[in-house]
Amino acid sequence: MVEIPRELTIGWLRRAYATGAAAPRQVVEEIVRRAEESADYCVWVQPPSMELVEPFLVTLSESGPTPETPLWGIPFAVKDNIDIAGVPTTAGCPAYAYTPQTSATVVERLVAAGAIPVGKANLDQFATGLVGVRSPYGECRNALNPDLISGGSSSGSAVAVALGMAAFALGTDTAGSGRVPAALNRLMGFKPPLGSWSTAGVVPACASLDCVTVFAHSVEDVRAVDAVARGFDTACAYSRFYEETAQASCELPDAICLPSEQPAFYGDFAHVYKDSWDATVEALRVAAVERGIVVRAMDCSYLNEAAAVLYDGPWVAERWADLGSFVETHPGDVLPVTESILRSGAREELTAEVLFDAMHFLQECRHRAQLDLADAVLVMPTCGGTFARAQVDQDPVGANSQMGLYTNHCNLCDLAALALPGVEAADSLPFGITAFSLAGDQRYLMGFAAELATHLE
Amino acid sequence: MVEIPRELTIGWLRRAYATGAAAPRQVVEEIVRRAEESADYCVWVQPPSMELVEPFLVTLSESGPTPETPLWGIPFAVKDNIDIAGVPTTAGCPAYAYTPQTSATVVERLVAAGAIPVGKANLDQFATGLVGVRSPYGECRNALNPDLISGGSSSGSAVAVALGMAAFALGTDTAGSGRVPAALNRLMGFKPPLGSWSTAGVVPACASLDCVTVFAHSVEDVRAVDAVARGFDTACAYSRFYEETAQASCELPDAICLPSEQPAFYGDFAHVYKDSWDATVEALRVAAVERGIVVRAMDCSYLNEAAAVLYDGPWVAERWADLGSFVETHPGDVLPVTESILRSGAREELTAEVLFDAMHFLQECRHRAQLDLADAVLVMPTCGGTFARAQVDQDPVGANSQMGLYTNHCNLCDLAALALPGVEAADSLPFGITAFSLAGDQRYLMGFAAELATHLE
Repeated sequence: MVEIPRELTIGWLRRAYATGAAAPRQVVEEIVRRAEESADYCVWVQPPSMELVEPFLVTLSESGPTPETPLWGIPFAVKDNIDIAGVPTTAGCPAYAYTPQTSATVVERLVAAGAIPVGKANLDQFATGLVGVRSPYGECRNALNPDLISGGSSSGSAVAVALGMAAFALGTDTAGSGRVPAALNRLMGFKPPLGSWSTAGVVPACASLDCVTVFAHSVEDVRAVDAVARGFDTACAYSRFYEETAQASCELPDAICLPSEQPAFYGDFAHVYKDSWDATVEALRVAAVERGIVVRAMDCSYLNEAAAVLYDGPWVAERWADLGSFVETHPGDVLPVTESILRSGAREELTAEVLFDAMHFLQECRHRAQLDLADAVLVMPTCGGTFARAQVDQDPVGANSQMGLYTNHCNLCDLAALALPGVEAADSLPFGITAFSLAGDQRYLMGFAAELATHLE
Repeated sequence: MVEIPRELTIGWLRRAYATGAAAPRQVVEEIVRRAEESADYCVWVQPPSMELVEPFLVTLSESGPTPETPLWGIPFAVKDNIDIAGVPTTAGCPAYAYTPQTSATVVERLVAAGAIPVGKANLDQFATGLVGVRSPYGECRNALNPDLISGGSSSGSAVAVALGMAAFALGTDTAGSGRVPAALNRLMGFKPPLGSWSTAGVVPACASLDCVTVFAHSVEDVRAVDAVARGFDTACAYSRFYEETAQASCELPDAICLPSEQPAFYGDFAHVYKDSWDATVEALRVAAVERGIVVRAMDCSYLNEAAAVLYDGPWVAERWADLGSFVETHPGDVLPVTESILRSGAREELTAEVLFDAMHFLQECRHRAQLDLADAVLVMPTCGGTFARAQVDQDPVGANSQMGLYTNHCNLCDLAALALPGVEAADSLPFGITAFSLAGDQRYLMGFAAELATHLE
């Protein structure tokens, strides 16, 4: 049998299936083996097993690939705050666990397209965190350097892809959970526009901001998954109608915006991150100029101010609105750091008036972004540094909030985002950038990744 | 000179100007005369005067009507919470008054199209009320029966049109202020979808829900004004992009939805209103069937529940967020009833958590409405009754809240609305209905008014 590569891509699998070099069962068997081998990475809440996957393999074997099953035999990981029918959903909290009778809409669509869910991935409890260490199922290790954080909250999803246990993985992203782990594990992480992918069957963090996301190795794979997963869902109150042609396209933007102020870099790797950012910017400028794309500076201070609304402002009350009653009735069942963050949403000073003030401010920010980013993408570092897991254990809140410096504004400002590798920082230390577009303009993210970001490697 | 009719329409004025039968100056002189004659109707805060209008007349006289000035010489009234450059804006509160240097975007666009703002119209203070009696500038009289309420908060705007002092008038509408006065004065009142008409230069009531609206005699006039007023405004954070072709069209819906439960009627005129509603429904059924339009029952209970969020729930905190500091620093300057409503937005129980719960509920309602009203319009009574002014003085809050029974849900559920006359209740007692569509579907409102509602007279 052919050797199954660590970098599992949809393209490789399709070819291997078409030529008979491999079959879905063999691929899953290898994934199960890899999961056992890498158990100390704490990637899984429900690890891949033949038992879990058997029903899906049976269905696939009943018919070969067809035009209706563009993801036939493609294995994927599912963050454990997203429902798979018959498999417990824990959201990283054993006491919260329930076993859903139906799968999340997004999982259903992927399965209908032939994809195979192989397991439920570890996460920062209740998707609250950007570090990947806030889980009773263990601190998820970084795929490249196990001493470092994996990033979160979609920690297991990203590391599953990075370690060859899935071709793609579903994450979620409220504050940056679909982007930070992509950056730290040298992957792409696509956070679709709000309401494009259904959140029906997903445990809410901030229901009005939550997105389901995908981690993958390439923009082609991101687009293949997006084509199946996106689209209005009558079961999801946050579903929005987007123009299908625009979403299906891949187009270069007219302009690339870069922050007018040099981003702040932090932690032990601040210098290598800064050098990577400078080299990335330089490479992007050259590639943009060659294609007649304008590169311009953008004042991003209002995005930073918007970001502050999420944890320092009243938005944390949205988490409390959905999870507060569980926390109150389950003393001791929630991790102390997670509980303290959730409880901050019940602070007396967070009145409806304060929230309306924040909503009005955010509306100004969204409006300003609409004007700034017309036919453009904004590029920022995904993170300004990273930490050893031991460092985060010492300062769990401070380290976490630094990881969100360039991610928290995104959903509050109604942007779509694609995290992707920048110029490499150092061996085993990837550096990531994120491209942001207006909600209706994800085609520019795809065009950016397909044509410009290829010059960063 | 030709006699200027009480029912001033854009069509009549255009013809009179084209044939030389009248000129804008004569029309304005007649309006000034009518305003003096009807002073005890308390229509105006800043009444029409030649001094106010002179600069506009001068501009008009410099060039005749052109394709760029489709509203050349058309007089309109402006609710006094909408800015006209150089004229004080009071919002119905003398202590709040300021003199803006620029006009509201909507006023600017209308003036650029040749329309003439003739005065600032009375209103329920801070646009908070549906009755028209909550003003230090006097209780605005109903145009048909001065003992009855005019409806509010855009009281003066509607009565100005009904008494022949304007061809159209700008109102605002958060809870129903652009529809209730239309119903009570036998007019059309169009409340555009959220973000279609700029609210830049408008005193906020609930900034996220506020709309500028138009009162007029016919759907043709409504459409002529809408064509000029609508459109994205970089100065307005709540501006939205709508598909222009859809907004410019006039099309019959596939279906008409009627509330599955008989609406509640109230007050001394409950019986005549009920009879009018029944007759209206019957006439609509006949007209719809003739055109192959489906008439179906719709469960509207969730719209009623959504409506309760506005005053009984946390949304009143949005008013407090914008006006609270003025109220606190101006003791005695706000009408007691208005102050007590605004202050209810500062109640301790209105926490950010409660507001998020309401937002999540409203999102469910909006989503359900999207499914229920695809290619359809919903028809409801605009009001289920009306009151004598003396009755409202006795029960200012109770009477007011009944007037909003079929209006309050509209903006919270992201609907567009057109209030228009139904089958007449009795002499001098008009009965109005409102057609609601999804935000992007105002063409169905226009089609409904142009082709179906004409069978109600």
